[in-house]
This record gives sequence, C-alpha cells and structure tokens, in this order.
Amino acid sequence: MTINESIGFIGLGSMGKPMAENLLAAGYRLRVFNRSPDKAASLAEMGATVVSAPADTAETGGIVMSCVADDDALETIVGRSDELTERLGQGGIHVSMSTILPETADRLSRRHAVRGGYYVAAPVMGRPDLVKAGGQSYYVAGNAKAKERIRPVLEKIGAQIFDFGENPADANTAKLGANFLIAASIEAMSEAFALVEKNGVDPSALHEALSSTLFACPIYQNYGRNILDAAYRTPLFKLALGLKDIRLISRTADASGTPMRFASVLKDRFLSAMAHGRSDYDWTGIAAEIRDEAGL
Amino acid sequence: MTINESIGFIGLGSMGKPMAENLLAAGYRLRVFNRSPDKAASLAEMGATVVSAPADTAETGGIVMSCVADDDALETIVGRSDELTERLGQGGIHVSMSTILPETADRLSRRHAVRGGYYVAAPVMGRPDLVKAGGQSYYVAGNAKAKERIRPVLEKIGAQIFDFGENPADANTAKLGANFLIAASIEAMSEAFALVEKNGVDPSALHEALSSTLFACPIYQNYGRNILDAAYRTPLFKLALGLKDIRLISRTADASGTPMRFASVLKDRFLSAMAHGRSDYDWTGIAAEIRDEAGL
Amino acid sequence: MTINESIGFIGLGSMGKPMAENLLAAGYRLRVFNRSPDKAASLAEMGATVVSAPADTAETGGIVMSCVADDDALETIVGRSDELTERLGQGGIHVSMSTILPETADRLSRRHAVRGGYYVAAPVMGRPDLVKAGGQSYYVAGNAKAKERIRPVLEKIGAQIFDFGENPADANTAKLGANFLIAASIEAMSEAFALVEKNGVDPSALHEALSSTLFACPIYQNYGRNILDAAYRTPLFKLALGLKDIRLISRTADASGTPMRFASVLKDRFLSAMAHGRSDYDWTGIAAEIRDEAGL
Amino acid sequence: MTINESIGFIGLGSMGKPMAENLLAAGYRLRVFNRSPDKAASLAEMGATVVSAPADTAETGGIVMSCVADDDALETIVGRSDELTERLGQGGIHVSMSTILPETADRLSRRHAVRGGYYVAAPVMGRPDLVKAGGQSYYVAGNAKAKERIRPVLEKIGAQIFDFGENPADANTAKLGANFLIAASIEAMSEAFALVEKNGVDPSALHEALSSTLFACPIYQNYGRNILDAAYRTPLFKLALGLKDIRLISRTADASGTPMRFASVLKDRFLSAMAHGRSDYDWTGIAAEIRDEAGL
Repeated sequence: MTINESIGFIGLGSMGKPMAENLLAAGYRLRVFNRSPDKAASLAEMGATVVSAPADTAETGGIVMSCVADDDALETIVGRSDELTERLGQGGIHVSMSTILPETADRLSRRHAVRGGYYVAAPVMGRPDLVKAGGQSYYVAGNAKAKERIRPVLEKIGAQIFDFGENPADANTAKLGANFLIAASIEAMSEAFALVEKNGVDPSALHEALSSTLFACPIYQNYGRNILDAAYRTPLFKLALGLKDIRLISRTADASGTPMRFASVLKDRFLSAMAHGRSDYDWTGIAAEIRDEAGL
Repeated sequence: MTINESIGFIGLGSMGKPMAENLLAAGYRLRVFNRSPDKAASLAEMGATVVSAPADTAETGGIVMSCVADDDALETIVGRSDELTERLGQGGIHVSMSTILPETADRLSRRHAVRGGYYVAAPVMGRPDLVKAGGQSYYVAGNAKAKERIRPVLEKIGAQIFDFGENPADANTAKLGANFLIAASIEAMSEAFALVEKNGVDPSALHEALSSTLFACPIYQNYGRNILDAAYRTPLFKLALGLKDIRLISRTADASGTPMRFASVLKDRFLSAMAHGRSDYDWTGIAAEIRDEAGL
Repeated sequence: MTINESIGFIGLGSMGKPMAENLLAAGYRLRVFNRSPDKAASLAEMGATVVSAPADTAETGGIVMSCVADDDALETIVGRSDELTERLGQGGIHVSMSTILPETADRLSRRHAVRGGYYVAAPVMGRPDLVKAGGQSYYVAGNAKAKERIRPVLEKIGAQIFDFGENPADANTAKLGANFLIAASIEAMSEAFALVEKNGVDPSALHEALSSTLFACPIYQNYGRNILDAAYRTPLFKLALGLKDIRLISRTADASGTPMRFASVLKDRFLSAMAHGRSDYDWTGIAAEIRDEAGL
Repeated sequence: MTINESIGFIGLGSMGKPMAENLLAAGYRLRVFNRSPDKAASLAEMGATVVSAPADTAETGGIVMSCVADDDALETIVGRSDELTERLGQGGIHVSMSTILPETADRLSRRHAVRGGYYVAAPVMGRPDLVKAGGQSYYVAGNAKAKERIRPVLEKIGAQIFDFGENPADANTAKLGANFLIAASIEAMSEAFALVEKNGVDPSALHEALSSTLFACPIYQNYGRNILDAAYRTPLFKLALGLKDIRLISRTADASGTPMRFASVLKDRFLSAMAHGRSDYDWTGIAAEIRDEAGL
C-alpha cells in the first residue's frame, strides 16, 4: 500500500472502473478521466484525482492506461492533434487495454513513437466480475522495456500476462482470435443443446458429461451453464459489444485475406439477434436465436 | 483377476481391441468375434475364445458387447433374423458401444425387447490411445437393471460413466452432440490460427494463452497442439470417420427439424477434405483445408 | 381425338391430375389409379377407367405413367414383389415423372429390366398452373426406343422435352440441379430485396430493373413478383415439398462428394421455415424467414 | 452529330473509355481526365480536350461524368477541398457512374449541395463489351431537374435508364443488390454444374434446358456458358473487382442490420479465390474454386 506511483487512467466503464479501483486499493495514485464525469465520483472518494480532459491524465514520461469502448473512442482520447502523446512525451507509455483493430494499434503506435513514447497493447481477457476479482489476463505486446515497466502494475490487478512480442497490433490480433473462439463456442454449444433437446434429451446431462471431461474448462462450464439457464437476459458482456468484436474479427479476416466460415455464420447470427431486439442481452443470448430457429 | 465372468465381444477394431484386451486383463473370459478373423489371433493368445459368427458370442441371459464401424455393421451383427437377440434370449444384454443414429438404437432396442433382452447404448468417448489407458468415458442409456449389471464391467475398463436415462437412443443423441462439439472446435481453432498467422502472429502463442485459461481442457489443449504441429497425417480418428459422424449429426438434425449452421459448414468442409484425398488424415486435418483456403 | 391408345396413369395429385385430364382430352384412353380413390371420380366422368391397384393400370408391353409425391410412394407403386413390372412385362414402359433420388431411379430401372421392360425417367418441370396449360417441360432419360415411343404422348401434353441420355437417373440428377437453382434464386432475391428495403429503397424498383434486363426470365419475373407481393401464403409448390427436394439435393451432393454451400444454407433455411409453421406456404415463403431475420 | 455540348469526363478505364468514345461519336465535346494520362491519348485524337486535373473537366453550371474504380478514387476526384464541386458551381451536375457505397453517395451529395450543384448517382450496369455496343443500363437517382438534363446524354450512349428517385444513394443501393444477384447466380450455377458433373451428367445439357425455359435470360445464358467453357481466365469483369463489390454489399448489409447468408458465402468464396491467385480471372472464375472444392 506504499507504492505511491502516479498513473493516468482513462475510461471508467464496466471494465475500467474495477481495474481503477483495484489500482487505488493496491496503493497507486490515479488521475482519472471518463467521458461522463459522474462515473468518476466514487473513485474521487477513494482518493483519485479527477481530471477534465484525457491528456490531463498524463505526465511527461509517465504511464497512462486506457480502457474504452471501441476504435473511435480510443482515437478520440489520443486526440486529433496528439494531445495525449505530446503530454506523455519522451518515454511515456500508453497502455491500451481495449479490444480494437490491429490496424488501429499500428496507427496509434506510430503516433506515440513520434513523441518518443510507447504504445503498449494490453487487451484484457475477462468480464467485469472476473476483473473485480483480479482474475483477468492481459495479452501484451509492445516495446520490451515499456512492457517491463508496466508489468508490476498489471500483475497487481490481474492474474496472468501473455506476451505477444514487440509489435503492439499482434496482441490485438490475438485477442480477436480468442474472442472469436469464445463466440464460436457459444454458437456450437447452443446448436448442440438444441439438437439434443429437439430429440428429447436433457441438454444439462450432455453439458455435465462434457464439462467434466473433454471440455472441462471455464468457457464450456460457465457459458454452457448460462445458456442452459437462459440466463442471458442479464448481460455480463452485451450482445451489441459481441457484434462489435465480430465486426473487428470479420474486418481483420477480410483485410488479411482469411476466409472464416464460422465467423461469417456468427456475423449473420449477431445481426439477426440485434434485429430481434436482443442488443442488451448477454452475448450468450445468441442461444435464444438458435432456439427460435429450431422452434424451441 | 478372479472375476471369471464370461462375456461376448464383437468388433476388434482400433477401439474394440484395446477394450477386449483390458477386459481379459481384468479377469473376464471372452468369446470374441471379428469380421476379419486375423485380428482375433492375439486375443486368442491372451485366452479369449474366438467364435465364427456374431451370435456365437452370446449365451442365454448373458452379456454381449459390440463396437463396430457404423449402423450397417451393427445391423449385420444383430442379424437379419435376429440371430443375436435370440441367442441372448430372456434377460440377455447387448451393450452397443458404437456411434450410430439414435433411430437405429430405437429400432434395435425394440428387436431385443421381443426376445426379452435388453439393448443398452454405451457409445464410447475417447480415441484408441485413451481407450488403451482406460481413460475413455461411456454415455450410457437403457433399462435400469441392465445398466446396473453392466456397470462393473464398464468401470473395470473405462474412467467415467454418464447416465442418459432409460431410452437407449438418448445416449447416441448425446454422443452426436458431443462429437459435433469436438468437430466444431477443430474448425474454430483452425480458423483462429489461420487468422492470426495471416496477420503475422504466432498461433502457438495464442494457443498457449487460451489453453491455460479460458480453454484449459483436453480438446483445446491436445487437438489444438495437433493442429499447430500439423500432426494430422497420423490419424487417431480418421477424417473419413469424422465425416461419417458429421453425416449422422446432419441426419439427426434434419429428422428432428433442427437447423445447425455450424454443422452445415462442417459437412461441406469434410466433403472437400475427402475430395482432396485427406480421408486417411486425422480429423484435425480439416485444418489443412482451412490453411489451403487462406493460401497458407 | 382419335388416338385411342390406352395408357396407365398412377398418381392424381395436383400435378398428375391435370396431366391425366389433358391426356384424356387429347384422345388417349386411360386406366387410372390413385391412393385415395375420390380423386379419380372426375376422371371417370371424363371417360377414364378407375382401377384398384397400381399394377392394374398396366398391360403387357404397354405404357404406364406415374407422378407421385416421393421415393417411397414410387417404390410402393412398383410393389414389393414387382407387381407393376411383371404386368408391364416384355417391352412395357414405366414413365416416371416424379422428382426422386437418382439412386432410386437406378434401382427401379434395374428392376424393370429384369422383366424386359423399360423405366424412363421424365421428371416434370412446372407447377400445376403451368401443367394445366400444357406449358411444362420434361427432363427425359432412358432407353432410346422407349423414349421415342413415349415422345408423342409427352408432346401432346407438355411444351418441351429435354433429353439427358440413356441412363434414367441422369434426368433426375438434372432435375435436382434445376430445382436447386430455383430455390437458390428465391433465397438470393429475398436477400437482395431485404437489403435494399432495409436501406430505404423500394425493392419493386430493383425488381423491375432486373427482370427486364439481365434477369428477364420467368423465375426472376414471377417468383420475384410473388416475393414482393408476399403472395406466398397461397402455395403453388408447398414449402414442405421444397424441403423434400432440398433434402434430395443435399443427399445427392453428399453421396457424390460435392460440397454445396448454397444448398447447405437452403437446408437450414427450409428447416427453420418448417419450425416456424410455414410448411403450407409456397416455397417462395422462405422470403418471410429472411424478412424476419432482418427485422422487417 | 451537331450536339456540340461540352461535357467533362473523368476516368478512362475499361468502362469509362468506351462511354467517352461513344459520347464523342455522338457529337459531344469532351474535356477528359485520367489519372494515367496515356489512356487519354486516343481520345485526344478523336477530338477530346485532355486536362491535367479532375476539376479542370468542369465548367460552371456544366456537367461532369465520372467512372472510377472505387470509393477512394471518387473522393480523390472530388478533391479534399471540394475543387470539383467549386468549379461546377451553381447548377453544375456530377454524374457519378461508379459502383460505390450508398453512404459515400450520401456524403458526396451533401458536398455538392453546398456549392449549389447536384450529385446524380448513375451506376452503370453492363460490362465493357456491352458498353462498347451501347447496351448498358443506368440506375439513376438524384434531383429531378438534374436527372432530366442528363437523360439525353445517357440515352445517347446506353440502352435503358431506371429511375430510383431523388436520393442519390438509392441508385447505389439498388446497384449493389443487382450485383449481389449476379454473384449469387454465378455461385449457384457453379454448384449445380458441379453436382450434376460429379453424378456423371453433362452440365451443358442442364444449362441448355434451363437457359431456354425458366432461366432464359442473359445472366444464366451468358455467364452459364462462360462457366461451362471455363472461359474465366479472360476477364470481362475481374474477380478482384467482384470482391470489391461483395465487400460493399457486405458493409451495406452490416451497416443496415441485414443478415445475408448467401452474401457471406460469397465473401468467403471470393477471398479464397484471391488466396489461390485468381484475382485476374473473370469473376465467373469462382467456378474454378467450386470445382476444386469438389475435386473436379
């Protein structure tokens, strides 16, 4: 609790806020910014300094962490005239934890380099409940020294760090690959459960068998349970955000000339879920689409 | 080693043979049959009695286990004139471990009932290497007393038994659901790995991150490793058999009115793998198709 | 009107009946059979002889035409013990106008050959309204002499005959290819119309442009109009029968190792249409599914 | 030949050049611009004035026609600082014949309006050979008076004009719908031909039957012939441009929340065709992909 290092933190949404709280609890001093300032109030009570512009979270040569909704929000934070990179200056580090396009990471990385700073991609893997408990992992890529410097910070608030090398975009690419696999497993489980239910078999029995043997891992255990309980009306990760990620996956696949048939099915699936008013469901809620389609 | 109970065993393929060997090692006496008799020779050396017709493996009120390639092979074993069910007679049990259509299980179950016997579906989950080590699990469904009687036999040679109730077909339905999920995860991983590789990221790094966190389970760990090592030229479960299972899944989905978009992608994928001469690959070999498609 | 030749006719459904009527009107004498005899009444009034078994429509060396619902119905007509082929005897011809599997045609063809008779596949292309007007075409395949003999009969009641050679199954294969193209164009138009409508453009304007230039042909003109008018609640060709054909296409593709991605989409599409209670819609009614999916 | 009206023309590619030539032949005076000036040489010989910047093709209140490769090229022509719209000034008309995103048309339309000018979308339907013969059609949308003024020009060089109302983007939306239908029919025919060929039936026989009856229209007749003759190595419309259009379709579908399953199949199909080095094939060349996939 005597760290007393000072860090900038931008983006106090459902993912960012618990991370910021855990940083404060771990003894860091924070300068926080959020687009809608009310979300910063509780952090101020915990001792954070609330600033009124993204660039104001930065100190020369310091560290700024950001966790925002999408590529556009991130570009806005960096600023049209590179206000943030200028304030971070020589040796400053921007730790970007958002799930964005690799090409956006590329572009931002170059803009930080102009001022002698570093852009480290560190997309976070885990949903708000996991983040609160400090169980999330980080897919990290960027300059080796910068990564070394931020490692203790991330280790204080997360469970695991996976290193994807020196090119920031690579962590984002990997994150998209991981998110694709989660979405694909939601679709696959939903189809399997629909199949057995339509044939008079309790899908929970199948789930129990699978999730204690071949598929004994969090995604199949927890997401599977969620699907079976039709618990997707309470979102942990909103379906609309899931579509956002599917779009990033689809664009990255397209730009790199990678046909991805499962991803194509997912794109259409999420679009119809949105058309049916399920944007605020959890993204396991595509199961509801699959059930509808089967007349269940 | 003093069990000395006598059991019939039909089908000494890559799955059946290690099971029969483990039964002998566990002290059971076996009457074995295999279509091509040479495969029975080594079992004879271990003490098994080799018989010359499927029905000759049966004793009135006894147990016969079968593990054959497909629905047709199983129908052939039971015999046009129900030779097997007749010999099994009142109280006899046919433990059918093959992956077949639920509707075939239904039909055979009725034919066994005519003679006062029981058909217990017990499709086996695991590949030959796992079976050898006794690590496979069984999806079991059928008459409660019959299941009780065969339980000690299965427990001697396998790791886990999952009960799907009294209707034999239900175990087969569940097995198809499980196999679908395996095939879907092969496709999904292959697409994810292709995506990151086309974007210059080492897919092994992604695999390591995933298989130690969200997807820390045998399928993602082992099949994933297999895909990355392009180890699919040595089949543990042949692609041609994978297509057989996909066809069973597709037919069961169709008959029950269950649209399954991922299963449809898999059907086309396996068909093109066959067209490209990959029938003898392991079924993870659809990864080679996905790589080709991406120009990798 | 003085032909006076005598022909057997089996199957007086929505397709068969107008053909039989047109044959009577053209001067042929008919022995007719229909599973539910009431449908034969009006034909009796027109002069047809109503018989009580399929085989009774046949005369040694004569011609029997059949038009039934599916493969099973056709097998039933021929009879378990080949009653029909026996009665047709040496030189008799069975003109089979149903849309069935090529492999069924193969099998039936061999059974007719045993008695010295001929099986000529002549699946009919056209819906009841077209058949009434004599506008349908026939895809014909079989023995050259047999085809020559039946040609004048078909020409009396249909518009065009397309010859697919000496192997009966080939006409059925071609018919499945044609039906696939129709179904695919229904899906494609429905998607295109949904796309433009979701973007605020009148799909009728697009239809007018297309169907008077690049796509100026009956399918795009008539089916397109049907889709735009949402006229699919009045079936000309029932969606449930459409699914039957999609299944034949899918099975033939599978058996021959032909991946067909559009056909796979169609299979899932028709299954969900059935699950949503649209079996009695016209098959253009999959447009309703596509509209639902887009939230229209 | 005595029209003597003066028009600007931008973009002398395989589509633009024959249009410009036909305009000159019809008696119009042209100021032409092309990025690579050599293509303008032959037009200069025919009497065109070659200018060195897109904006130089414009006269206050005049007409400028453009036909360029894609959205970016079109934005470049209009210029960062709206050079073109400024020069066109009050009452000037930009007739944009490119296939672009509806949203690009929206944006450009607003920019022209600022200067009191008009942006009329008039995407051209037809390939170079058709354009040369004056057989192409135009999908036109924009201000009514502007459309009236350009109508005689378009009628001089094209066969038909279809009006999509006052909102320029609507013509582009319709064009994407039309191009989608063409691509879908290429895939559908290729699949049907593969199916029958794999079953031993000559696809030409099926094509003849279809293209003289239900599908008796240019796309099925000409594109179908092209596929059967494997004539796709000589591009009339390059596969890479086809992918560009599929991308526009996919983006427009996505942005408007329209799931399009056939379009998704096409996206993956074109991507793999590109990965296999077929970018310079005609877009009917996806047939080669479908043949490969079936082992033909």
